[in-house]
Amino acid sequence: MAALLKYDIFVARYIVKFGGTSVGNLDRIQHAACIVAELAKEGHEIAVVVSAMAGMTNQLFSYANTFCDVSFSPEHDVVVSSGEQITAGLMALALQKYGLDAQSFLAWQATILTDNNYGNATIESIKTSSFDTHFAKKSIPVIAGFQGITADNRITTLGRGGSDTTAVALAASLKADCCYIYTDVEGVYTADPRIVQNARKIDSIHYSHMLELAKHGAKVLHARCVELGMQHDVDLYVLSSFVKTAGTRILNNTDNHNKCAISGITHSLNEVHIHINGESAYISLVLNELSQNNIAIDALVRERLSDACVLESAHFTIGKADFEHAKTLLIAHKATNSFDLLAIDPNIVKISIIGVGIKDQAAEMFVLKILAENHIFVHFSYRLDIKLSLVITNDQMTKAINLLHDALIIR
Amino acid sequence: MAALLKYDIFVARYIVKFGGTSVGNLDRIQHAACIVAELAKEGHEIAVVVSAMAGMTNQLFSYANTFCDVSFSPEHDVVVSSGEQITAGLMALALQKYGLDAQSFLAWQATILTDNNYGNATIESIKTSSFDTHFAKKSIPVIAGFQGITADNRITTLGRGGSDTTAVALAASLKADCCYIYTDVEGVYTADPRIVQNARKIDSIHYSHMLELAKHGAKVLHARCVELGMQHDVDLYVLSSFVKTAGTRILNNTDNHNKCAISGITHSLNEVHIHINGESAYISLVLNELSQNNIAIDALVRERLSDACVLESAHFTIGKADFEHAKTLLIAHKATNSFDLLAIDPNIVKISIIGVGIKDQAAEMFVLKILAENHIFVHFSYRLDIKLSLVITNDQMTKAINLLHDALIIR
Repeated sequence: MAALLKYDIFVARYIVKFGGTSVGNLDRIQHAACIVAELAKEGHEIAVVVSAMAGMTNQLFSYANTFCDVSFSPEHDVVVSSGEQITAGLMALALQKYGLDAQSFLAWQATILTDNNYGNATIESIKTSSFDTHFAKKSIPVIAGFQGITADNRITTLGRGGSDTTAVALAASLKADCCYIYTDVEGVYTADPRIVQNARKIDSIHYSHMLELAKHGAKVLHARCVELGMQHDVDLYVLSSFVKTAGTRILNNTDNHNKCAISGITHSLNEVHIHINGESAYISLVLNELSQNNIAIDALVRERLSDACVLESAHFTIGKADFEHAKTLLIAHKATNSFDLLAIDPNIVKISIIGVGIKDQAAEMFVLKILAENHIFVHFSYRLDIKLSLVITNDQMTKAINLLHDALIIR
Repeated sequence: MAALLKYDIFVARYIVKFGGTSVGNLDRIQHAACIVAELAKEGHEIAVVVSAMAGMTNQLFSYANTFCDVSFSPEHDVVVSSGEQITAGLMALALQKYGLDAQSFLAWQATILTDNNYGNATIESIKTSSFDTHFAKKSIPVIAGFQGITADNRITTLGRGGSDTTAVALAASLKADCCYIYTDVEGVYTADPRIVQNARKIDSIHYSHMLELAKHGAKVLHARCVELGMQHDVDLYVLSSFVKTAGTRILNNTDNHNKCAISGITHSLNEVHIHINGESAYISLVLNELSQNNIAIDALVRERLSDACVLESAHFTIGKADFEHAKTLLIAHKATNSFDLLAIDPNIVKISIIGVGIKDQAAEMFVLKILAENHIFVHFSYRLDIKLSLVITNDQMTKAINLLHDALIIR
């Protein structure tokens, strides 16, 4: 932590990141600059990370996709990374208008080195030395998020949630006291507030719980950014640039999180339920084939159909993007005697309950009982550590999530 | 010249530049790529330079100007230079779609070094070594025009006509055989075709003549780019990406240009006519004061009012941007006995006739006679080498230019 007591004033180092809607137009950029100016007035060291103005990255993607079927090419990244350059320059100008010293940094200027994985690159290092001189003279570096460069000076982009990743990686590299992620929601919620009216904003949550929420449908932060923050022990806040309220704090040590049996309930409509029956060895062979075709398998539950035989029933989910590919592979096996494809169903939702309270089987039984009593059929459930995932038909989603939220969180 | 006879095939090196309307939308970019692909098919070495998509730079300027009154700040350049990055990436993708190997280069990647004159920087050097490897493997570098970097790695822009300047500077650095500037007009015309119906496209023109045309109102090329081409003896073509016709060739040695007595007639509505009377020394003092206030004086004509006294009459023009500033300075002198401000008039047009045919006084007399016979009052005229400038009231512009064009060029 770079926090220092200088001349009796507590000088902290903050990374402040603004998402696309928080810099969605010129008024929003000015408002974001005002938030930074207030922090700067207190004498803190600040680095700002910006996304592209809302809608711009999508437009650039559609431009690039006209000439290129895949989103993973060096030139695709050259095109789609320009949006953040515009915002970085505008934010620096907006800060200057508040009388602050500010300078934009693109990935090549900040030397944000990544691997060569175009469209979904991973940050390998950030050269922090140039920022030190800026902090020393209370100048505010404004870093274009989402972008990096390879060792041979080509532009890369960091994939979904990339600007958050830039912010958290910077917070780690610069040993910031904390990292503020400004967005258009007030923080992390116990469930999606658009579905659950009683959803509560979470004040503070442990990284391990946030990671599960992010992995299983919570859109506020991308799992990669959460993982990076957890690994480097970044004191992370998610908050709104539209409404002035305390957001959600994410950290590795929290006394609070054990008090909450259940941190939150997420859902994902982006999955396909697959149910196969067959000889144990044959099922292993099929699952192996899916993996070898880069089809990620989640929530796998295998059950022996009887003690006497080697027949098994397997349930799992895959991403919707892999639906057609998986279908083709599975249908090729269907004809055999030793294999049966019982379901390959995209009309499902995977609801995940995250919290220490779900660790034992009694909790799982309680959840399944609530759903059964309310005539909600569970295709299968999968429990691992602090997570219980349930796969149900998607038209029962709202009813199911509200029932579970009321029973487990509101009580 | 890099032209080589390789394996009995004439391999030339071309710089091909596309202006904003030539890459104004995705269809135009594809068409531009098609033009390049045809050249590449013949085995030539090609580097492409691109402007921003038409309208984009203006939009970025208006964004930046929201936060910043002046257009000459480092962050302003960061914002407005992004447009060319987008086109460079898209053009590289479009070329790849034609099966060509192409790679975009931003100023920091091509190491286009400039001075620190933000908003209007001058290229100091281009590191050409990285292009050589591309030419060797018939890969097409696509360079973002209009942008440069300073020695301390800040982005600059090159001002008006900046992408043309990038192209010509590249042609000089890479010793290209020629440089094609693709635009939305078919070449350089003997007069503005929107005003003179009989205006002819010029097939070939000497750099010195093109420079005068550019300096005095011809918008097809910026004077800075022409000057650079002249200095480095670049074989330059201006042509249309919309219509397949031979454009205008600009070069230092042309047998043709002496045959044409008059190359062209330009006009500028961007000037203010100033007429002052006074003591010779006082007039010098006032002119000096204007210069010291960075007000550029053009077409200065000073005449003694009589041989016996020291009174002089002085006519000249200044740019419209300096109108108010000059007015304030001149009015402060008006009260004195030794000075009289007779005219400070923005409602004028400066018509310039360019060509060897205008070198002698007889030609000037001929021109003035035509205008007088047609009741067009000439405030003053100014002749220097191959240029004759005439200042008249702007409402007589169309009539005057057509008369002169018919008399001097069509005949």
